Amino acid sequence: MSSKRLIYLPLGGAGEIGMNAYVYGYGEPGKERLILVDLGVAFPDMDGTPGVDLIMPDIAWLKERTDRLDAIFITHAHEDHIGAIAHLWRDLGAPVYARAFTANLARGKMDEYGLPEDAITTASAWPEVIKAGPFTVGFLPISHSIPESAGLVIDSPAGRVVHTGDFKLDPAPVVGEAFDPDLWAEVAKPGLQALVCDSTNVFSPNPGRSESDLGTPLEELVLEARGMVVATTFASNVARLKTLAEAAHRAGRSIVLLGRAMRRMVEAAIETGVLRSFPTVVSPEEAQDIPRENLMLLVTGSQGERRAASAQLARGKYRGLELKEGDTFLFSSKTIPGNERGVIRIMNQLSEKGVDVVDDRGGLYHVSGHANRPDLQRMHEIMKPKMLIPMHGEHRHLREHARLAEARGIASVIAVNGMMLDLSGDRPEVAGHVDTGRTYLDGSVKIGALDGVVRDRVRMALNGHLVVSVILDEDDDPIDGAWVDMKGLAELGSSNAALCDILEEDLGQFLGRAKRATLTDDDKLEEGLRRVARQSAQNEIGKKPEVTVVISRLG
Amino acid sequence: MSSKRLIYLPLGGAGEIGMNAYVYGYGEPGKERLILVDLGVAFPDMDGTPGVDLIMPDIAWLKERTDRLDAIFITHAHEDHIGAIAHLWRDLGAPVYARAFTANLARGKMDEYGLPEDAITTASAWPEVIKAGPFTVGFLPISHSIPESAGLVIDSPAGRVVHTGDFKLDPAPVVGEAFDPDLWAEVAKPGLQALVCDSTNVFSPNPGRSESDLGTPLEELVLEARGMVVATTFASNVARLKTLAEAAHRAGRSIVLLGRAMRRMVEAAIETGVLRSFPTVVSPEEAQDIPRENLMLLVTGSQGERRAASAQLARGKYRGLELKEGDTFLFSSKTIPGNERGVIRIMNQLSEKGVDVVDDRGGLYHVSGHANRPDLQRMHEIMKPKMLIPMHGEHRHLREHARLAEARGIASVIAVNGMMLDLSGDRPEVAGHVDTGRTYLDGSVKIGALDGVVRDRVRMALNGHLVVSVILDEDDDPIDGAWVDMKGLAELGSSNAALCDILEEDLGQFLGRAKRATLTDDDKLEEGLRRVARQSAQNEIGKKPEVTVVISRLG
Repeated sequence: MSSKRLIYLPLGGAGEIGMNAYVYGYGEPGKERLILVDLGVAFPDMDGTPGVDLIMPDIAWLKERTDRLDAIFITHAHEDHIGAIAHLWRDLGAPVYARAFTANLARGKMDEYGLPEDAITTASAWPEVIKAGPFTVGFLPISHSIPESAGLVIDSPAGRVVHTGDFKLDPAPVVGEAFDPDLWAEVAKPGLQALVCDSTNVFSPNPGRSESDLGTPLEELVLEARGMVVATTFASNVARLKTLAEAAHRAGRSIVLLGRAMRRMVEAAIETGVLRSFPTVVSPEEAQDIPRENLMLLVTGSQGERRAASAQLARGKYRGLELKEGDTFLFSSKTIPGNERGVIRIMNQLSEKGVDVVDDRGGLYHVSGHANRPDLQRMHEIMKPKMLIPMHGEHRHLREHARLAEARGIASVIAVNGMMLDLSGDRPEVAGHVDTGRTYLDGSVKIGALDGVVRDRVRMALNGHLVVSVILDEDDDPIDGAWVDMKGLAELGSSNAALCDILEEDLGQFLGRAKRATLTDDDKLEEGLRRVARQSAQNEIGKKPEVTVVISRLG
Repeated sequence: MSSKRLIYLPLGGAGEIGMNAYVYGYGEPGKERLILVDLGVAFPDMDGTPGVDLIMPDIAWLKERTDRLDAIFITHAHEDHIGAIAHLWRDLGAPVYARAFTANLARGKMDEYGLPEDAITTASAWPEVIKAGPFTVGFLPISHSIPESAGLVIDSPAGRVVHTGDFKLDPAPVVGEAFDPDLWAEVAKPGLQALVCDSTNVFSPNPGRSESDLGTPLEELVLEARGMVVATTFASNVARLKTLAEAAHRAGRSIVLLGRAMRRMVEAAIETGVLRSFPTVVSPEEAQDIPRENLMLLVTGSQGERRAASAQLARGKYRGLELKEGDTFLFSSKTIPGNERGVIRIMNQLSEKGVDVVDDRGGLYHVSGHANRPDLQRMHEIMKPKMLIPMHGEHRHLREHARLAEARGIASVIAVNGMMLDLSGDRPEVAGHVDTGRTYLDGSVKIGALDGVVRDRVRMALNGHLVVSVILDEDDDPIDGAWVDMKGLAELGSSNAALCDILEEDLGQFLGRAKRATLTDDDKLEEGLRRVARQSAQNEIGKKPEVTVVISRLG
C-alpha cells in the first residue's frame, strides 16, 4: 500500500460564496505536489469591510510551499474565480491554465498590473490534458452563465477527481457548449474517486431553466416597449447580452454598450470566437442622433453598484444619454443578497424619472447560472462518485449538499476553508487544518483581515473619533490644557453647550488634578485622558467615541 | 364658496417605507388647524447611517406651528408609526390618541423617557369619534400584523377622508378584529373625498393570505420536530405568537419568551384584553429542567439584529439555553430588504451547530401584514373614493399605486414627503412644498441628517483618518517637524516602510520648505499639510485619507 495520498484543501470558497481557491495535492504527507484551482475575489461591503477594494483568500499556506506548486487552473472567468490572479500571482509564480475566453481575460488583468501575459497558457478542452506534477488535468466543458466554463478532470495515481466548477445543466445555453451528459458519464466511467461540486443552488427545489427560455419573453418585452429600453445584467453573461441584443435588433433598435466591463466581455468573446455574431453596436455619441424608441442600451451595474452605468443613468445624464418618462429599464438579473438596498435605490430614482422598471419578479427575464437541487441530484447520478465534496457555498449550502449526497449513499463531509481532506480512501477523511483567512486589497496595498485596520474604521463609523492633544513643558506641566478635535460627533451636547468646550473643560480639570506620576508617564496620561474624554462624551451625547491622544513634550 | 381648504402633508413615510408622519389640516390657507397621524421611526444601517440609533422625520415645519396642532393620532403600534413619540412629543405637546393596545405601548415609551403618560388617551373604536379642532376622527378597526390596527375616519367640513393606516384584508386574523367590508362600505357610503392608502405590497400580484392559514403548517412543523424548536417573528405579531405557542402547547412543549420586546408585547396584549388566552410560559431558568424536545422558544431578532435573542442563540449560550445538533430554528418572517446579510449570518452560524433552519421559502410559515395588489383594488372598490393618495411606500410603490387607481378612473397623484396637497376639490392639487428631511437620534442627542456628522463617519470608514500635529514656537518655527497618528489605515506602504514614517518625512520636508506666509497662517498651513499628507498617502497606499490637522502655537 502506498504511503502517498491525495489531498483537497479549500483556501477560499468553502463556507462562503466568493473568493474561490482550492488546493489539490498528491504525494507523501507534507510533501505533496500541489495544484491550485481558481483564485478569486469576494466583494466588500460597508457593514464589515468599509473602504476595502477587494477581498481575497489568505494564501499564506500556499505561498510557503510554492516550490511544490506545479500549476494554477482557472475554471471560468467570473471574478470570484479569476479576480485575484493579478493581485496574488506574483506570490505563487506557477503557470496558469485556462480555456481561451478565460485566458483572454486573465491576460488583460495581468497586463493591467504589469505582469507577464505569458504566465497564462490557453488550454484546449477535454480530452486534451495538461501535465502538472503527478496530476493530469483536463478542462471538461459545462454550461454556466459565462462562456467556456469548465469542470476539471483531475487524474492522479490515487484516482480521478472531477471538480465541477460553477455549472448548470443547460441543454441550450445560447452561447458556448451545452451540458453533455454523455461526455460527463464517459469521464466518470472508469470510476470516480470524488466529485467536488458546486453547492450554490442546493436550496432551489425546481430544475433549473435554460438560458434559451428567455428569448421569447425578452423579445416580447422589447417589442412592446415604447421609449428607450435599457437592460442590465452581468457583463460576463455573454449569452444574455446576445439574446438581449438580438431582441433589440429584431425590434429595429440600435445597441449601445455602456460600462467598461460590458465592452470588454463582448470584445473577449469575439476575439476568442466564442461569439460569432452580435448585432452592430453604436457608440453613445452616435446614439444621440437616433430616436430613443430605436435604442437599446446594455449597461453594467445590475447589482446597484454606485459607479456603474445603471446607477449613473438613474442619477442623471451618462455619456450624453438620459432616461425619460416612458422609457423601460430591465433588470435581467437576480439581486445577490446584500445588494438589495443599492438596487432598490436605483429603482426609485428611475421611478422618479417616470421610467418603467421591469425586474425578474415573474421569472421571465432571468435564469440562474447554477444547478438547482434536482440538477445536483442528476449530476450525482451521472457521475456516481465514491465521495462527494460540496464546495462553492456558505456553510448552510455545504451542509445541505452533503446531506443530499448522503441520502443517496454517497460518502460526504462538510469541508470549510482550511480543512484538509484526504481523498485517497473510500470516504473523505479530515487530514488536518491550516490557518486561512482573508486578505484585503485596500487602495494599492494588501492588509490582513485581522490587522485591526478595518476594525478601527468600523469603530470610527459607529462611534466617531476624538483627537485629544496635550503639550507638556520641560517640567512636565501641561501648557494650555487639552485641545479637542472631533470628527463624526454631534457638535452640541445635551446641556446645549458645544461638546468640544465641555470635553476641553473636563480634560483640563483632569490635567489640573493629575499627579506627577501621571504627567510624567505617557501611557498613564494617555489612559487617563482617554477615560475622561469617553466618560464626558457619554454624559453629554450618550456615545463613547474612539479617542486618539497626542502627547507632545517640549522637554 | 368657502376659502377654507383641506390639506394633506406627509412629513415621513411617503417616498420610503418607515418613519410615518402625515399632517392633515383644515382652514384658511396658512391658518389651517392641524392634526398629525403617526410619528414613527426608520432604522439606520451601516451603508448610510453608521452609528445612528434611530431615524426620525424632521418635524421642524410642525414644530413652528404647534399652536395650530390639535391632536396626534397613532394608527397602530409598529415602530415605524409610534417609535418617535417619546423622542419628539416634547416638541409638539399635543394630546395623543390611540386604541388600547397601542396606547398601552405608547405609555410605556413615554414613561421610559420621563414624559407624562397622561398625554396618551385611549380611544374607542368607530363609531365613537374624537373632536380635534375642525376635525372629528374615528378609529376604524382593520386587520394587520399587530393587534388593534386602525384606519382613521377623518371628517371635516370639506368632507370625509379615510386614512387606511397599514392593513390587510384578513377575514380571520387569529387575534383582533377581522376586516369587515360592510363596516368599511358603510363609512364610505356618504361619499368619500379621499382614501389615503397603504402602498407597501402594490407589486404583489396575488391576493393576500390569512394569518389563520398558518395554523396547520406550523402545527405540523412543530409536531415533526425532534429537538428544541426556536421560532422567531416580529414580537408585535401577537397573532403569530399565539399560533406558534398553541402549536407548541399541542405538541406538549413548554413555551419560553426570549427578548424584551417579546415579553412586553404579550404583556400589553394580555393587559388590554387583546389576548384572552395564551399557553403558560416558563422562564429560561425553569426551561433548563425541561427536556429540549419539550421546549419551544419564541425569540426576537427575525431580521438578524445582532443584539437580539436569535443572534445570541446563533452565536452561543443565551440565558442558559443553547442550541444543538437536531434542533429546529424557524424564521416565521420575511427578511426586509437590506437585512439579508444579518439573517444569512445567523443561518450559517446555526448550520455550523447542526441546527435545521426552516424559513419561509415555501410560503408556509409566514404571511404578509399588508394588502396585496388585488386587495388594494378591492379596497378601492369598496370605498369608491373621489381621489386616492398613495402613502406608506417608496417612490416606486406610490407611482404604481397611483397608476392602479387611475386605471380605475380614480384621481390620484404621487405625493412625497414635503408635498402639500389640497384635497378639497375634485382631484388632488399640489398646494405647496415644505422642507422635510430626517433627524437622527444619535446616542442621546438629535442631529440633522445634513449636519455632516454622519458624512464624516462614512468618510472615515471608507478612507481612514490621519491626524497631523505640528507645534510652532514663538518665532513660528516648527518644533520637531510633524507628528502623524493614524486610524483605519494600512501600517505598511508599497515601499515597505511604515506609512507613518513616510508621511512624517514628507510633511517635515514641506515644513522645511514652507514660507513665512504659510507658517504664520493657520489656514494656509493646515491646507498645505493636508494636501501633502493626502498625496503622500495616495502614493504609498493608494488611498486619500481624511485628515485632521492640529496646529499648536507656543507664541
